[in-house]
Amino acid sequence: MRSTIARFFEPESIAVIASLKETWFGGYTLIKNLLVFGFPGKIYPVNPSYSKVLDMQVYPSIKEVPEAVDLAIIITPRHTVPGVIKQCAENGVKAVIITSDGFAERDQEGSELQQEIVNIAKRSSIRILGPNTVGTANFATGLVTTHFATGYEKVRKGSVAFCAQSGIAGAQAFPLEDIQYWISKICDFGNKCDVDETDILEYLADDPDTKVIAMHIEDVKDGQRFVKIATEVVRKKPVLMIKPGRTKEAKKALRAHTGALAGEDQIYEAAFKQTGIIRVENFEELLNFSKLFALQPLPRGNNIAIITTSGGGGILAIDTAIENGLAIAELSDQSTGRLKELSPTLGTNPIDIFTTSLVFEDMLRLYQEVMEIALSDHNVDCAAIVLYEAPFTVLQQHSQIVEAFNSLKKFNKPVTIWLYGTRLSLMRELSLRLENSGFPVYSDFITPIKALATAAKYSACSPFPP
Amino acid sequence: MRSTIARFFEPESIAVIASLKETWFGGYTLIKNLLVFGFPGKIYPVNPSYSKVLDMQVYPSIKEVPEAVDLAIIITPRHTVPGVIKQCAENGVKAVIITSDGFAERDQEGSELQQEIVNIAKRSSIRILGPNTVGTANFATGLVTTHFATGYEKVRKGSVAFCAQSGIAGAQAFPLEDIQYWISKICDFGNKCDVDETDILEYLADDPDTKVIAMHIEDVKDGQRFVKIATEVVRKKPVLMIKPGRTKEAKKALRAHTGALAGEDQIYEAAFKQTGIIRVENFEELLNFSKLFALQPLPRGNNIAIITTSGGGGILAIDTAIENGLAIAELSDQSTGRLKELSPTLGTNPIDIFTTSLVFEDMLRLYQEVMEIALSDHNVDCAAIVLYEAPFTVLQQHSQIVEAFNSLKKFNKPVTIWLYGTRLSLMRELSLRLENSGFPVYSDFITPIKALATAAKYSACSPFPP
Repeated sequence: MRSTIARFFEPESIAVIASLKETWFGGYTLIKNLLVFGFPGKIYPVNPSYSKVLDMQVYPSIKEVPEAVDLAIIITPRHTVPGVIKQCAENGVKAVIITSDGFAERDQEGSELQQEIVNIAKRSSIRILGPNTVGTANFATGLVTTHFATGYEKVRKGSVAFCAQSGIAGAQAFPLEDIQYWISKICDFGNKCDVDETDILEYLADDPDTKVIAMHIEDVKDGQRFVKIATEVVRKKPVLMIKPGRTKEAKKALRAHTGALAGEDQIYEAAFKQTGIIRVENFEELLNFSKLFALQPLPRGNNIAIITTSGGGGILAIDTAIENGLAIAELSDQSTGRLKELSPTLGTNPIDIFTTSLVFEDMLRLYQEVMEIALSDHNVDCAAIVLYEAPFTVLQQHSQIVEAFNSLKKFNKPVTIWLYGTRLSLMRELSLRLENSGFPVYSDFITPIKALATAAKYSACSPFPP
Repeated sequence: MRSTIARFFEPESIAVIASLKETWFGGYTLIKNLLVFGFPGKIYPVNPSYSKVLDMQVYPSIKEVPEAVDLAIIITPRHTVPGVIKQCAENGVKAVIITSDGFAERDQEGSELQQEIVNIAKRSSIRILGPNTVGTANFATGLVTTHFATGYEKVRKGSVAFCAQSGIAGAQAFPLEDIQYWISKICDFGNKCDVDETDILEYLADDPDTKVIAMHIEDVKDGQRFVKIATEVVRKKPVLMIKPGRTKEAKKALRAHTGALAGEDQIYEAAFKQTGIIRVENFEELLNFSKLFALQPLPRGNNIAIITTSGGGGILAIDTAIENGLAIAELSDQSTGRLKELSPTLGTNPIDIFTTSLVFEDMLRLYQEVMEIALSDHNVDCAAIVLYEAPFTVLQQHSQIVEAFNSLKKFNKPVTIWLYGTRLSLMRELSLRLENSGFPVYSDFITPIKALATAAKYSACSPFPP
């Protein structure tokens, strides 16, 4: 074990102190999640009213559990939690997830209970994640500590650590299986009475399974430590963050949600700038930008090539590119010449291939040639491709499309795809195939441009340029 | 016929002057589109090399067509177009769509050809839509003048007129059938050598089938006339517009796309403010905001109630609401009391029902009661509801969910839904059912808030408040 924090993601034994009633949430579901996800460690269900659950022995209290478990998960009514923590201390537990809610986010009584828990934990050197959390997941080890059904066994393993100060980070809120998103680890901070965003950042920085950290925070508990640690983490891997509370109304609501004291937004803005954390607006950006970092190389500069079948779409993309710090790549004379050879209507960037595609005998070859010309151009650092899926085009040959894109990998420049078309099912199918091959696909032409701009900014500030 | 412009949407007879080869685009596909969409008027295919197509008589030239058709559609090589227009004049045609491209958007020769066409048309009092356009559609009459397969017969009829200075407005680019979007009319302006955005605005203002105008423009041909007409149109119905060209790079590209002279963005911004046109960033906003106007009543004020199962999501929504001009409604004492009766954790807005939902025996009844309390509150002008679709919740009963929402119609206040969950297919199904009942559904929690903010702004400026 590298640190106590690691116990929240890499425990070898777990105690689940909870109701074990067979329902859609709670201890029963949590244990089932662990079994289905393939957690290889020891599981100790704890409940005085049961002797067996899911063919496992149930212990009347954590004190009776025969070993000091790596991690205890508590899902009991709030007023019982201090007592349970004391028992955990007696067992020798050093890491506890408190799933129960009704603490600082609820009322005065809850705040006092939370403080009591913190005091007990400190005395016993116990680290606490939560309360008011849906826990953690580790896709490398089959760990899941969520008390809702997650279906994580069907979610794709990947390199994005997805964390939130909210139960929203996980398969209980996002259709992670259906969208086949790339998850390495999941964490809900909950009320952050002890373990906080900085602890998790520090842990994830050295997690070999995590390439990019996608995080939603409602506040920061220790600003100085956050800036210090985050600065180091960003040197190792990109960190993207949502931080609401730009308005006083939202700050007020934050207090009710997780007991967060949000502070002035300018302070956060400054901290993000100083540390190199990439601030994003919402969960769509968080996941959409992160997948670019997870799948594609970093750009060496900010010059973008845009290859499009939609002239109008291409122009919207230019505004977005420029306003987000990209430059429209000026193609070399050689590239311009090669494009003009393909068709006299080609030659400038954005490369609008629509007219050419109507007369070119093989649309896929046209795409491939244009993409190769653009990406081999030394003035081009990255490319945004518009792909058109329509039943009446030759682009029905999805495997050939994927092949054409695969051939671009040799250029080692990031490529994004805006896929539009007429059939959601076909678009979905092609999108999954392209993403399986490592090309991030987007359903609009603003997000992929912003994602590339974000990658270019990160790349420019990185001490280890690609 | 109310105006010559009406001929582009309500013709009783059409001549199609084009190649009739059976391929995936061109005159053949266009005529097939008309037949399948159920166009009831007369169709005259024109081509010297054919005698029959799709069981219809083909005329060797437009001059041989036995009546002065309401609308001629030209899809012939660019250098032949001036001659064809002259023949159209001899037939007595007053409205022509030029689908052909290669004019002002291509090169000097194209610019000259386009000018020649304009001169001929002026002499003969012919109005031209295009060139370089995919034409028009009218869902009330089964008209479609697009030379790509459209599948419009399966698209839902609705009250949004969707226009663009691009081929992107239509089923050849958007999965309109799959998303079941609400279309009244479609128009691609193309190069706007004659008929322009202002002509179409003026026409749509009095179109009884159109409740909201969703438009993408690359430039405005006559600024003064645009401002005058648009001001009048906005008094009658909301107009939403995309106008790219905020950056000099995009302005340059506009010239190559449709020969547009974009002008300074501040001038457009000022014109939009003056006229009351709602400027949006991209096609997602254009369609997503328009569907709110199409489906829901206008709010009487800017006070929003937020009902959410995601506390974190609710807070992101607050920032968006405030920054876009909404206010978080302060609930009346009566509403607060009724909420607290349901559960002591309720009472403030945003109304976060997550904790309550875990202990409430009937989640749907909880939703319904909370929604009714919020919408009956005189301090609340509109509501954003977060709906959670997960296989393990009682929310599987889609028809009951729809019923619960239908019961909100009596309050005559706009309601939007953010649907999140774990299964794309279930979310899709529920989304379609809710939208069929008139409730716009969104896949994130930023867009529906911005949509309500936009509706509140329009409502506040409207001379006929709701």
